[in-house]
Amino acid sequence: MAIPRPTISRLCKLYSLLEEMNERGQLTLSSNDIGKRLGVGSHNIRKDLTYLGETGTTGSGYDIKTLKEQISRCLGFDRKRKACIVGLDKTGTAILSNDMFFSKNFDIVAGFDSNINRLETLKIDIPLYPTYDIPVVIRRERIELALLTLSGETAQIVTEKLIDGGIKGIVNFSPVVLSSSDSSVYISNVDIINEFRFLSALFTLDRGEA
Amino acid sequence: MAIPRPTISRLCKLYSLLEEMNERGQLTLSSNDIGKRLGVGSHNIRKDLTYLGETGTTGSGYDIKTLKEQISRCLGFDRKRKACIVGLDKTGTAILSNDMFFSKNFDIVAGFDSNINRLETLKIDIPLYPTYDIPVVIRRERIELALLTLSGETAQIVTEKLIDGGIKGIVNFSPVVLSSSDSSVYISNVDIINEFRFLSALFTLDRGEA
Repeated sequence: MAIPRPTISRLCKLYSLLEEMNERGQLTLSSNDIGKRLGVGSHNIRKDLTYLGETGTTGSGYDIKTLKEQISRCLGFDRKRKACIVGLDKTGTAILSNDMFFSKNFDIVAGFDSNINRLETLKIDIPLYPTYDIPVVIRRERIELALLTLSGETAQIVTEKLIDGGIKGIVNFSPVVLSSSDSSVYISNVDIINEFRFLSALFTLDRGEA
Repeated sequence: MAIPRPTISRLCKLYSLLEEMNERGQLTLSSNDIGKRLGVGSHNIRKDLTYLGETGTTGSGYDIKTLKEQISRCLGFDRKRKACIVGLDKTGTAILSNDMFFSKNFDIVAGFDSNINRLETLKIDIPLYPTYDIPVVIRRERIELALLTLSGETAQIVTEKLIDGGIKGIVNFSPVVLSSSDSSVYISNVDIINEFRFLSALFTLDRGEA
């Protein structure tokens, strides 16, 4: 049964929420609570969960550990994935040095930058390579995911190199909307300005300002 | 006519795309091209655009400048918005020092951190305040948007302070899913791990691995 994309997106967010609740020692969570925390209706949540098959509920809600494992199995979170980062300027290195980002099931196994000086002077604990090595390193290391923290111009060129190497997914932090020349490669565009715009559109329309 | 959220989200992405095309000197864009770049069907795009009222198309597609202005007016992008950043560790300061992020219609007018030492030693060109000043500064400066780059534990407490001051939207970079105690305050949770998970779920389900 094909799972719709919005459902996959909500299940990912739910997984983060369950992780957090589990770390806090909470045992169960109701669909109402889940809906409130994720900002969607509880009926949506219940419908999303039907894609997981049988989910065990008790009077007090879903069992957090069980639900977490079910999502993990369904969406393939139980496998370790190799990832790389392209662009090692301030933003890139800040992300790399921030262990809040890369703790879970993702291993950053390579960093790329077009600036050779920067590669030689950076003190980072992962192997660093010049950008032109992207296809060969991606292929050799079987890297599945890439995080792009580049300024605009070179982002699309780098994307083609990543696709050439066989990358499967790209999270794009660059201020351009990237598109994939290969429909089997997924790209997620993250842009703070765009997030700001989206929020300001929501509250503008709420107030009937526009 | 109320605009559905997914439409608002796509119009925001379309706006970024139009900006980029405009900067490159391109004049028109077809709904097919738009669909391809944003990864959605062209019929969706045409339906989204009906919310803008009359859109001028020629044989070669939509006029980029006109369409950009129409979205801008409809979603309130023609107004300058004040924003702040909470959390001035490496990630926060990297974002602040990166002019790729804050060039457009958003003015970062304040920074907050709970570490007083950090506030005194940071060399940043905007006024900095301790976290407990959040409600009074937000109210005084009429700040509408906040960017949160905090580690997990304090993010929800800071969120309450922001809401207390009258914030309207929060972009959350912290590794926890935040919820709003006030339904008129919008929160957008951005989480690289979550993006990685979403992409890996997409390609896992594609390959029928799970």
